[in-house]
Amino acid sequence: MVVILKENVSQNQLDTFVGWLHDQDINAKITHGVHTTILGLVGDTASLDIDIIRSVSIVEEVMRVQEPYKKANRKFHPLDSAINVAGLTIGGGTFHVIAGPCSVESEGQITGIARRVRAAGATLLRGGAFKPRTSPYAFQGMRAQGLELLREARAATGMPIVTEIMSVAHLDLFEDVDLIQVGARNMQNFELLKELGHVQTPILLKRGLANTIEELLMSAEYIMAGGNENVILCERGVRTFETSTRNTLDVSAVPMLKKLSHLPVVIDPSHASGLSWMVEPLSLAAVAAGADGLIIEVHNDPEHALSDGPQSLTPDQFDTLMPRLRAMAEFMGKRLEAPLPLPEKDA
Amino acid sequence: MVVILKENVSQNQLDTFVGWLHDQDINAKITHGVHTTILGLVGDTASLDIDIIRSVSIVEEVMRVQEPYKKANRKFHPLDSAINVAGLTIGGGTFHVIAGPCSVESEGQITGIARRVRAAGATLLRGGAFKPRTSPYAFQGMRAQGLELLREARAATGMPIVTEIMSVAHLDLFEDVDLIQVGARNMQNFELLKELGHVQTPILLKRGLANTIEELLMSAEYIMAGGNENVILCERGVRTFETSTRNTLDVSAVPMLKKLSHLPVVIDPSHASGLSWMVEPLSLAAVAAGADGLIIEVHNDPEHALSDGPQSLTPDQFDTLMPRLRAMAEFMGKRLEAPLPLPEKDA
Amino acid sequence: MVVILKENVSQNQLDTFVGWLHDQDINAKITHGVHTTILGLVGDTASLDIDIIRSVSIVEEVMRVQEPYKKANRKFHPLDSAINVAGLTIGGGTFHVIAGPCSVESEGQITGIARRVRAAGATLLRGGAFKPRTSPYAFQGMRAQGLELLREARAATGMPIVTEIMSVAHLDLFEDVDLIQVGARNMQNFELLKELGHVQTPILLKRGLANTIEELLMSAEYIMAGGNENVILCERGVRTFETSTRNTLDVSAVPMLKKLSHLPVVIDPSHASGLSWMVEPLSLAAVAAGADGLIIEVHNDPEHALSDGPQSLTPDQFDTLMPRLRAMAEFMGKRLEAPLPLPEKDA
Amino acid sequence: MVVILKENVSQNQLDTFVGWLHDQDINAKITHGVHTTILGLVGDTASLDIDIIRSVSIVEEVMRVQEPYKKANRKFHPLDSAINVAGLTIGGGTFHVIAGPCSVESEGQITGIARRVRAAGATLLRGGAFKPRTSPYAFQGMRAQGLELLREARAATGMPIVTEIMSVAHLDLFEDVDLIQVGARNMQNFELLKELGHVQTPILLKRGLANTIEELLMSAEYIMAGGNENVILCERGVRTFETSTRNTLDVSAVPMLKKLSHLPVVIDPSHASGLSWMVEPLSLAAVAAGADGLIIEVHNDPEHALSDGPQSLTPDQFDTLMPRLRAMAEFMGKRLEAPLPLPEKDA
Repeated sequence: MVVILKENVSQNQLDTFVGWLHDQDINAKITHGVHTTILGLVGDTASLDIDIIRSVSIVEEVMRVQEPYKKANRKFHPLDSAINVAGLTIGGGTFHVIAGPCSVESEGQITGIARRVRAAGATLLRGGAFKPRTSPYAFQGMRAQGLELLREARAATGMPIVTEIMSVAHLDLFEDVDLIQVGARNMQNFELLKELGHVQTPILLKRGLANTIEELLMSAEYIMAGGNENVILCERGVRTFETSTRNTLDVSAVPMLKKLSHLPVVIDPSHASGLSWMVEPLSLAAVAAGADGLIIEVHNDPEHALSDGPQSLTPDQFDTLMPRLRAMAEFMGKRLEAPLPLPEKDA
Repeated sequence: MVVILKENVSQNQLDTFVGWLHDQDINAKITHGVHTTILGLVGDTASLDIDIIRSVSIVEEVMRVQEPYKKANRKFHPLDSAINVAGLTIGGGTFHVIAGPCSVESEGQITGIARRVRAAGATLLRGGAFKPRTSPYAFQGMRAQGLELLREARAATGMPIVTEIMSVAHLDLFEDVDLIQVGARNMQNFELLKELGHVQTPILLKRGLANTIEELLMSAEYIMAGGNENVILCERGVRTFETSTRNTLDVSAVPMLKKLSHLPVVIDPSHASGLSWMVEPLSLAAVAAGADGLIIEVHNDPEHALSDGPQSLTPDQFDTLMPRLRAMAEFMGKRLEAPLPLPEKDA
Repeated sequence: MVVILKENVSQNQLDTFVGWLHDQDINAKITHGVHTTILGLVGDTASLDIDIIRSVSIVEEVMRVQEPYKKANRKFHPLDSAINVAGLTIGGGTFHVIAGPCSVESEGQITGIARRVRAAGATLLRGGAFKPRTSPYAFQGMRAQGLELLREARAATGMPIVTEIMSVAHLDLFEDVDLIQVGARNMQNFELLKELGHVQTPILLKRGLANTIEELLMSAEYIMAGGNENVILCERGVRTFETSTRNTLDVSAVPMLKKLSHLPVVIDPSHASGLSWMVEPLSLAAVAAGADGLIIEVHNDPEHALSDGPQSLTPDQFDTLMPRLRAMAEFMGKRLEAPLPLPEKDA
Repeated sequence: MVVILKENVSQNQLDTFVGWLHDQDINAKITHGVHTTILGLVGDTASLDIDIIRSVSIVEEVMRVQEPYKKANRKFHPLDSAINVAGLTIGGGTFHVIAGPCSVESEGQITGIARRVRAAGATLLRGGAFKPRTSPYAFQGMRAQGLELLREARAATGMPIVTEIMSVAHLDLFEDVDLIQVGARNMQNFELLKELGHVQTPILLKRGLANTIEELLMSAEYIMAGGNENVILCERGVRTFETSTRNTLDVSAVPMLKKLSHLPVVIDPSHASGLSWMVEPLSLAAVAAGADGLIIEVHNDPEHALSDGPQSLTPDQFDTLMPRLRAMAEFMGKRLEAPLPLPEKDA
């Protein structure tokens, strides 16, 4: 249920109304817009009498929200959300590229790639320390040591780090990760989502292989309901009958999510296609569809990468791609933020 | 099998070689490139000895083509195909928008919409006379009379007409249609495809609801094998588990088809999403992905349209969209052709 | 809209009522049940006033039928339909196996296989004369000559023949075919369905690769609306993300179709799996789910079959399978009909 | 890699060979069959010289195993696995029905249902204590208290309990659960699977919404590679385009899994269809396809169930279903085990 208040409501009147709702076990999330104040009500709103609410003097209009997601719902929060990640702003009109290798493999590798992609304009560094592998016999990632190497790369370049968490049990290790990624296969790991709702670190939530837009928003709702409203959505291709690409990028997810929700939306063209040569056209399409950012795999030696080599760009290829992406982002009216400054002493 | 000839081969040498192949029931499709001449061989090439072919003095290199499609294969025809539709060029670097109502409903309607979309920059007029309806009780289209009204709209505006054929039995009626459309549900109506291979009218071939990229190219191959090489491919969304959109636009079809084939590729964002508000972002994404054109539904009164109203744009909405599409097309380096001139006497 | 009449309505009262409906352009399909008479109304029933109909003295109850299919709807025809195919009864409590090769290849082949499968208990003979091939370069079937050979096999064994039609243009050739098959790729070839509505030959309608249960019933409705009510539905696997089988058999289609419709339902386990070894378990599952029959591919030499060899059973394998299928059918309470008698003179 | 030894190999020869492999970091899983001894090798077998292995005197034949799963692979373990669950045997020729409510709601509810389903012939009791809900606002299950109530129902009826675990963090609570279920949405929660590999409790592993047969077997491999070989696979419907059922039951998963793997396979017809009336036909089909068991939801008051009511059977409906299932199981040659005896003092 959403309550739109009349203009020029006093703080006292607002507090009284919110208190009255609270007495009925209803929580109100308040959003101050330019002209109006909107209250998104969460709780057993089905039992509220909509006419009684409408009759309250400061209330302009009341609408029942049909969608099962509330906090993620644009009706609750009409303005685009701008998520602060280590001083950078994701969403709210900006455009960012997150780049890096699929897996962290060594210090030289991760820091070297970080320098290259930062020079090309990427603003955040990705790298997998805990890898979700279909086979138990495949390289599982450098794990805690991989996180350490990511920190070193951050220390060297100033780039905030984005990396995937695979278990609640590892949460301690992720304390200083700037953007915690929930992988596609964990999009409905509800116990993990609940725990991530209790931290304040922004979460990059990837859509599952065959999860609907609504299910993605409900998974975001799990995190937000826990208290962490810093969620960035990521479309990474869905599973279909087509076999020439690894997945099928659902570019319509961008406009659909932006209509239904206020959360930022980025796209992963690397996992979507599984083909390095397709990263450019899919990236351009994503930006043209309105995406707030991209997450792209870059590896210095894709042929010998420990995971997902065929879909990675080389640093040279990334250098060539970035100017085109920036031009497209500017064409679409997005604001490009500069990378964070290099730390004083270059480690 | 593809045979690449050495530079500076004389016509006589070429003819002799082609004749030798012909004696073995192999047809050679010759493409003269800038530096090389390429022969695409069609027939029982599995029985040819690749080493013998390689040893022929004028032969530079021979490659077996694994893909089951040959004429549609870029290996057979490395340059982009430019298809002539009534004097306009589709593919080969241009960008065109085909627009019009889902169904032809009356003369006033189709000619009125034609004038509006032409003024906005659309270069071809679409309109369904024979409608593929899931229900036998739904409006089946004005049929022959609908084609007549399309002709009148063409006479009034000079716009070439694009309309769907649903049966070989109707082929006579389509003699002067400029671009014949094969609908998604008929993509594997092989007998229809074979017949269309015997006409010279360009064909707009829509991908089926759940057909692979390869199956789409094989359907194009059916038409081309019959002798009609004027095929334009159209991605219009595929069927997936997602229910918030009518279909799921597979934007990766654009770069994939352009890699595998030389045929032009257009996108239908109207049927893909089923939502008029999503036509703009999907169109922009399609152009950014490299599409040669778009086919968009426009109706003067979508609420009362006899078919597919919810996905149609009004003429005003189309007026607003077109400048953005043209800007994106130019950004992507496409060449925009002007609409054909108005006929002398405005009927 | 369905109208249920009171018991003991006179023929005169019924005729008057039907006539009154007819004056309003509504056709009534009358089904006499054990205790009640049901009228299924087809036409612009939305404009009928349901209360007025209810007030008619002979009317017990009126229900609007939400589903877009009427003639195929069980609400219109509560009893199972029993379709007469050359003297055999498909549906209505019987169980039949249609068997034969994917393609008719020669007289010896088709007649030889016919004898073998008939001896094993199959009651109808299938064989493709017009083959839907994804590639224009693949064997397209023996076509008219193939139909001729099927006739010869029928003359030799008495088995009714089942074969696929691919175009309205060929309808003449199918005049004496006992059961005309519409292939999966033509399930929404609406012009073909309309034409088949004008013949009286029973139609075996295969579900499309990615068509819903409702779309299948609407395609049946096309045929029935044309006047041909002899439609048998066939589930043959749908397209999914799974690649270990050719398609994914949707066994729930059997109970779902039987709930929604009165038409018989058979299953094609050969095309569903694409694997000969899987035909037995899928066939048993199909019968256990309530199917009225199966259509199974049998070839004397699968390794050298001109189409779909890997999914065909040898005659020996079919001999082994049949007793198990018959036992399962009897376990499920189905009535097995004997094959039609051999013609007097064995050709 | 699989090594087949000659007959009559001495224990000494076997030990020597296994030791030699161990020195090269290869582990051998030994299966003694009727006539042969088979060694399934796990480790870096790609580096082994297959001819050298073949030349060893006790070796009959060596085959490289292409499939990425080894321990789950039937090539490694040709005989059907029989998994011991609290004294009952799942797989290896038996047939069992697991029944109970979707969620544990109260003591009276779970124990009452347990008594009813046991009387009808179900041998294991299911009930969800930790519920995977798409919405954070929906009933999440009684959690630890729910497990307690399951224990009480077991104490009252002797039935082993089957319940879903959703997080590694809860593993302690599951110590005395007889069969731990991994839900569809956690099939690729690899960290959870690894942990479950370290317990000895049998695991019921559900196939994910859109996971392939191979991915299911790789998830089983994760558990088995950890040391827990007691895995039972469960097909519960996959996600497709069809909307008339909740999911689409992939009955071909039963024969496919049994061909590729030695692990038992059960089916969940309740979640597959989402429709209580479809549980019977799908159950019969599953048994006819060769399933080793079924897991069926039964609730005393489906209309007021806290989760998934529409797909639950009432105890009366379950009473009616069970004799038909048992007859089908016997028809398919399965051995039905009796429920475990009631505890001495009926709590």
